[in-house]
Amino acid sequence: PTSPKRGSGSGSESETEGNGGGKSIFMVSDGTGWTAEHAVNAALGQFDYCLVDRLCPVNTHLFSGIDDVEQLMEIIKQAAKERAMVVYTLADPSMSESARQACDHWGVASTDVLGPITEAIGGHLGVSPSGLPRWAPGREKTLSEDYFRRIEAIEFTIKQDDGALPRNLHLADIILTGVSRSGKTPLSIYLAQKGYKVANVPIVMNVDLPKTLFEVNPEKVFALTINPVVLQSIRRARAKTLGFNGEIKTNYCDMDYVKQELEFAGKIFAQNPVWPVIEVTAKAIEETAVIVLRLYHDRKNRCSMPRISKRY
Amino acid sequence: PTSPKRGSGSGSESETEGNGGGKSIFMVSDGTGWTAEHAVNAALGQFDYCLVDRLCPVNTHLFSGIDDVEQLMEIIKQAAKERAMVVYTLADPSMSESARQACDHWGVASTDVLGPITEAIGGHLGVSPSGLPRWAPGREKTLSEDYFRRIEAIEFTIKQDDGALPRNLHLADIILTGVSRSGKTPLSIYLAQKGYKVANVPIVMNVDLPKTLFEVNPEKVFALTINPVVLQSIRRARAKTLGFNGEIKTNYCDMDYVKQELEFAGKIFAQNPVWPVIEVTAKAIEETAVIVLRLYHDRKNRCSMPRISKRY
Ligand SMILES: Nc1ncnc2c1ncn2[C@@H]1O[C@H](COP(=O)(O)O)[C@@H](O)[C@H]1O
Ligand SMILES: Nc1ncnc2c1ncn2[C@@H]1O[C@H](COP(=O)(O)O)[C@@H](O)[C@H]1O
Ligand SMILES: [Mg+2]
Ligand SMILES: [Mg+2]
Repeated sequence: PTSPKRGSGSGSESETEGNGGGKSIFMVSDGTGWTAEHAVNAALGQFDYCLVDRLCPVNTHLFSGIDDVEQLMEIIKQAAKERAMVVYTLADPSMSESARQACDHWGVASTDVLGPITEAIGGHLGVSPSGLPRWAPGREKTLSEDYFRRIEAIEFTIKQDDGALPRNLHLADIILTGVSRSGKTPLSIYLAQKGYKVANVPIVMNVDLPKTLFEVNPEKVFALTINPVVLQSIRRARAKTLGFNGEIKTNYCDMDYVKQELEFAGKIFAQNPVWPVIEVTAKAIEETAVIVLRLYHDRKNRCSMPRISKRY
Repeated sequence: PTSPKRGSGSGSESETEGNGGGKSIFMVSDGTGWTAEHAVNAALGQFDYCLVDRLCPVNTHLFSGIDDVEQLMEIIKQAAKERAMVVYTLADPSMSESARQACDHWGVASTDVLGPITEAIGGHLGVSPSGLPRWAPGREKTLSEDYFRRIEAIEFTIKQDDGALPRNLHLADIILTGVSRSGKTPLSIYLAQKGYKVANVPIVMNVDLPKTLFEVNPEKVFALTINPVVLQSIRRARAKTLGFNGEIKTNYCDMDYVKQELEFAGKIFAQNPVWPVIEVTAKAIEETAVIVLRLYHDRKNRCSMPRISKRY
């Protein structure tokens, strides 16, 4: 079998590996497995130093919808065969107990990602966990109002990409602005998935910004800035992908032009001092997202201790 | 302070609550906090039965970028004051140890989400975790090739939304098709964030699908279907949001029309038996996503045990 590379899951599936070449981590869930995957991802950040350059390659394998003990046992036996470790999220306590015991029995290292936190929250709330996985039969299957609001945020955000429909800017929760390739689009989408309606407005050298941008509450506008050298290299890669097919201006990757455009943007930012200017160089999208959201919530809440709060 | 509702973070911030009205969970990270939030979210799924109707309301508070012990102590003291529990991800072992001890000292329930899994992975790989948080000074700050590939996938997917640019369908990793409001757009975006280039093609009663859809590898096409009653109610809500402003056909929410359109779609699906037909009724986006990805990877890998694999 071929396996996509880190974080991609698609594209360059060039490496053929079978079980050889690297240690394996099995992620097993009665649900989707995304929670286990997220936790494994974060933990792997602690081994970046040896993952880089493939000094200690790791293969993860996600098994989702595992809700009966026979399947579970088969996977754990397979883990033993492949000398993999197992990370699991199993809501039914008898399933997670079976996982633990079978891993012990087959000499497979294992971690329960869901159990400890569920137990702690249960103790804190003074109620017992249901023990029901997300797809348990008989569980109520209605999607919440918030769920639909989040979907609406995504649709809104797509429609408002790249400066489209400036007349709608007043409907946005958050407006991002910055030069081309400063990461407005992926950041917009990331925030949209968290339920925020986002519009992004590109800044292009000597082109006027839409009037409506200056008519909305400036507290919801966030400016992005980026190091010119990094921006140039991102633009070069972009131009290569697009194949210089006319969509791109010839001086787009020019260092002089890149610097001038960033200065042009900087002047606009200076004229709008309420807009926070966020430096995005070498930041992952989820990192910039948390900076935006902290500012957004601090401004709304004027709370002594900066925090992002939600109600369940 | 006001707090957005579950999963939204924006919109209806109507409830004023201070610390009253519900139990609090503090999520503390030296990074973004999204890992802790994801784990808390999954665990809260175990308490759905009492979260519904606000029988036991929960407020979460996310503290990100906590990388010195004074800040950490202040937050834990605040947690004690607000009778909150603490969930933390702190890469530096001295920080996580401080968190544990301070929580014990102040009588605050706590869970370490990062430590146990990091330790287990370290043991499995036979190397030590770096102990460095994602924003530690001196850490290499380069974004990977995959990172940029993921961003490209997002940009591609936005451009291909709602049947746009059918000439590009051959460039997609995954193509989704289904009637309006079957969830193609949010599912496309979700998959794009995982690195897949997705195109979605709407099916509209008596409208021909683009020729290119039948020219691509049919193994990458996924059909979505949904219960007519649920679809009608989603379309009604949609029509209300859009305010019947001409973007919507008058019979769009008509039960007869809804059923006919689903039948029309069903016939197309029957004519293309390679396309898997996925039932999306009452499924969350991330649930449909894992179904699509499992099929996608199984088809690519023809592996005895269905799994989604990645290489790090
Ligand atoms: N809404 C939910 N209700 C009940 N359990 C859930 C819910 N969401 C996630 N879980 C559980 O949390 C764990 C992680 O979910 P997942 O991220 O889908 O693998 C699994 O054991 C799920 O069964
Ligand atoms: N790429 C990374 N390198 C090092 N540590 C990371 C990385 N990503 C996440 N972490 C750590 O994993 C935990 C969860 O991260 P976050 O989801 O950003 O709160 C934090 O303790 C981070 O410091
Ligand atoms: Mg863009
Ligand atoms: Mg759509």
